[in-house]
Amino acid sequence: MVSEQKIADVSFESLLRIFTIPEGPDSTLTQIEDSLSKNLNQFLREHIVAEEKPLHEIEKDFSNAAIPEQPEFVSDHTEHLLESLVSHSVHTSSPSFIGHMTSALPYFLMPLSKIMIALNQNLVKIETSKAFTPLERQVLGMLHKLIYSQNDTFYSQWMHSANHSLGAFCSGGTIANITALWVARNNALRAEGEFKGVEKEGLFRAMKHYGYEGLAVLVSERGHYSLKKAADVLGIGQQGLVAVKTDHNNRICPADLKLKFAELKQRKIKPFAVIGVAGTTETGNVDPLKEIAAICAQQSCHFHVDAAWGGATLMSSKYRHLLDGVELADSVTIDAHKQLYIPMGAGMVLFKNPDAMKSIEHHAQYILRKGSKDLGSHTLEGSRSGMAMLVYAAMHIISRPGYELLINQSIEKARYFADLISQQVDFELVSQPELCLLTYRYVPENVQAALKQASATQLDELHELLNELTKIIQKKQRETGLSFVSRTQLNPIRWAQRDTIVFRVVLANPLTTKEVLSSVLDEQRNIAKSVPDLMTRLEKVASQVLNQ
Amino acid sequence: MVSEQKIADVSFESLLRIFTIPEGPDSTLTQIEDSLSKNLNQFLREHIVAEEKPLHEIEKDFSNAAIPEQPEFVSDHTEHLLESLVSHSVHTSSPSFIGHMTSALPYFLMPLSKIMIALNQNLVKIETSKAFTPLERQVLGMLHKLIYSQNDTFYSQWMHSANHSLGAFCSGGTIANITALWVARNNALRAEGEFKGVEKEGLFRAMKHYGYEGLAVLVSERGHYSLKKAADVLGIGQQGLVAVKTDHNNRICPADLKLKFAELKQRKIKPFAVIGVAGTTETGNVDPLKEIAAICAQQSCHFHVDAAWGGATLMSSKYRHLLDGVELADSVTIDAHKQLYIPMGAGMVLFKNPDAMKSIEHHAQYILRKGSKDLGSHTLEGSRSGMAMLVYAAMHIISRPGYELLINQSIEKARYFADLISQQVDFELVSQPELCLLTYRYVPENVQAALKQASATQLDELHELLNELTKIIQKKQRETGLSFVSRTQLNPIRWAQRDTIVFRVVLANPLTTKEVLSSVLDEQRNIAKSVPDLMTRLEKVASQVLNQ
Repeated sequence: MVSEQKIADVSFESLLRIFTIPEGPDSTLTQIEDSLSKNLNQFLREHIVAEEKPLHEIEKDFSNAAIPEQPEFVSDHTEHLLESLVSHSVHTSSPSFIGHMTSALPYFLMPLSKIMIALNQNLVKIETSKAFTPLERQVLGMLHKLIYSQNDTFYSQWMHSANHSLGAFCSGGTIANITALWVARNNALRAEGEFKGVEKEGLFRAMKHYGYEGLAVLVSERGHYSLKKAADVLGIGQQGLVAVKTDHNNRICPADLKLKFAELKQRKIKPFAVIGVAGTTETGNVDPLKEIAAICAQQSCHFHVDAAWGGATLMSSKYRHLLDGVELADSVTIDAHKQLYIPMGAGMVLFKNPDAMKSIEHHAQYILRKGSKDLGSHTLEGSRSGMAMLVYAAMHIISRPGYELLINQSIEKARYFADLISQQVDFELVSQPELCLLTYRYVPENVQAALKQASATQLDELHELLNELTKIIQKKQRETGLSFVSRTQLNPIRWAQRDTIVFRVVLANPLTTKEVLSSVLDEQRNIAKSVPDLMTRLEKVASQVLNQ
Repeated sequence: MVSEQKIADVSFESLLRIFTIPEGPDSTLTQIEDSLSKNLNQFLREHIVAEEKPLHEIEKDFSNAAIPEQPEFVSDHTEHLLESLVSHSVHTSSPSFIGHMTSALPYFLMPLSKIMIALNQNLVKIETSKAFTPLERQVLGMLHKLIYSQNDTFYSQWMHSANHSLGAFCSGGTIANITALWVARNNALRAEGEFKGVEKEGLFRAMKHYGYEGLAVLVSERGHYSLKKAADVLGIGQQGLVAVKTDHNNRICPADLKLKFAELKQRKIKPFAVIGVAGTTETGNVDPLKEIAAICAQQSCHFHVDAAWGGATLMSSKYRHLLDGVELADSVTIDAHKQLYIPMGAGMVLFKNPDAMKSIEHHAQYILRKGSKDLGSHTLEGSRSGMAMLVYAAMHIISRPGYELLINQSIEKARYFADLISQQVDFELVSQPELCLLTYRYVPENVQAALKQASATQLDELHELLNELTKIIQKKQRETGLSFVSRTQLNPIRWAQRDTIVFRVVLANPLTTKEVLSSVLDEQRNIAKSVPDLMTRLEKVASQVLNQ
């Protein structure tokens, strides 16, 4: 090849070319795309470096705030992306990446994603999405039926009705949860007499009209952090997010929920929603949905279920009973980009009552005119992509029984891993898997013995050291790049609610084998041995306890 | 080929294959993807049917709410998608689709999108995005610099600072605007003395603490409909969105803005933000940003600019003066999926002050820990995809001068089209293009003459008929599928603010030629002739006026 230096030029003709002439079959970009299409895992293994580069080093490559004055050739820039971005991205689909809810993707979704992006539809209105609008309404109908099991008449009446909506497709679970609470808040503070409703007059006047001193949303102590954001943005305030006590399985205590209702009533604070969590982010537990539903019915309170992660369990005939009571919820959040194996950006909220979303309906002159079927009149977001197509395709290609197999194997793999951890002399299972998520920590054998006999002060000391050890192991394991588990802080009843840092594992990737799980433990054990100082301090305290 | 009927099976082995074995080179999906990659426009021309199928017909294909119990082969399902979805989607990248802000995409973004989706990063935290986090921070830095032109020291100090944020990458302009107003609201109602801030205590207590009777956001009558949603969700109420009068060019009247401030003060209502629009959705006009900024400075009020659509004009040295004053804004919304030619789903909000977003900062135990650089601590959304990569790549491959050419040609094409419309005896230009958006309507020659002499009652009558005609033309033009303009309703001062339905044209597609523009007018003229009843009624009223 002649080494002829080519400089990209800026002319209107060269610009038109990028809109009309595709990358040739020999271009760097096409070749990279091809190799990725042929074997994604190999591509990622080859291109993502294993050893972690410190973030401040990576930042050096992304430090220029000036928009380039000189265009780059696509091929040159693609090489640059491979070297500086792809190589230092996270191999989220690796079988040993078991720390978060992001898993592997089915292959067929990648070409379909490209088609979806090339079509570049905007789902806010029919004029820019056409058939994508009924498709999205069908997808919402499918999820609605999965939860609420209404009959065909129901769906033929409401699914495509211009003035109704079975839910909203969102960028993710946070927006889905905010949408549910927005609807609940507006329905609780609806128009009445002279008062035109909170959507028109705002919260301050709504409170004065109804004579409330505040608003509240009740949620388990283990609710997702994003609910605080929701309470903030909706004007309720984070203090309005009232934490309900949980039991030793991290599930809401119905008795405490009742108590909280009574307390709020005394303080003239209106609880307008209770959130049941179906799959807590940190421990994967499911609240007692039926009992919560009964209390909500009694209190005439909106019952929302945050099943962003766990909702997919409804696909499994074998395990859907774990979410019993979800069908009693007024609204449910499910993220398709979690256990439905769709790429990032596919959240949904479903409402039992097709009229529920009227309280947040919006119209405009140039779109979303009254009587139109434009989806934008019932979504918090405006312009949105055609992601629903990927959910639709996956539902058809994988089918319900296919999803069932995936869900079942995840749950059963988690149970297997929990057993494996329990069998080790130097690991402690902190939370049992209810779905496919569990937490545990590394605790050397004699430290385990010491924990059983230690005084409160000694327990404090041991926990502090163990927390430090867990942090170090998690960080080192991530840095070496062989496998990844996440960590969080729990307050287990067993340890008198002491701050307890744990490894957190989510087993949704169907490619994660038993061998991978064993090696994750081996690796952690070895890392522990590589921090002798800390281990020695732990052993020392343990010996004191055991020899006292 | 042997016609052997194959039925897709459900077994864990077959499921594993969809995660490990790519579509073969001869598969239907690969072939479709190839043909799309080779020539997108041809692919869309061939697969999207021209004649519009009525929505209720399309809905029949999307009417089943049951999740399939039987898996489909990828190839079969792909054929199905082509026939029932792609064929009835909207050809948004067509040179004659000039009705909305969705335009053609550069080719290189399609393979890059596929790579982005295959990497499936989650930008909420570094553990699931790594290098994508500094990349997104750089993209925000680039847009920040484009607006605020701070020096290198500024960006090296703040762009990658864990406790600061120059903005937020969002799914779109609506979320970006909500984020800006959320920040402004929380800063206006911050902690003070005993009061812990609106984010903690909520709106009701905030109002009582500060002694306000309400909150307000001031915006031009032509502000985007989504701002009503924002006012609703933030608890201010739609009545809190105070409309400021606009002049004959649809720009805010500074005198009226001052008046509104005074009125609100008297009513003890706190205006916590003024929104200047830089490119109104319906007419493309830009508010007098400098004058608004001066008033905001005087009133100590947050100044937000909604430049979702027009912000890209800053790329043009020639035309960036049209947005003079934007650099005085406290926050600015820009959508990259509009005039930066990025696929749907790339909104951004930038804040002048790197400390501004502290008022909405959120943390959690398992991610977003204090001091971490996780992006999720400053975004309304949680899990998000790596869309920023596409903006980054386009900035490098197209470069600033390339974008300038694109912006300039759009603006100049709109001016050309405005001239062309003005030269016709039977069209009326309703709003001049300030950027690349204009509105007009079809008005037969003698009706134009009649409009000049008509009495108020006659004007009412003529406008009503013209409105009906514009609606019919727009609808028929869309249905025949040759070209697409949108429509909206304006209240031009010239017509004594009568409801005036107009065609709305956005000229961002670089492939739209002068010939396309001529043929759009010819087509509209021909459609008008095809509704003789209405035309006769119009002519009759016009004759009455002219012969009186």
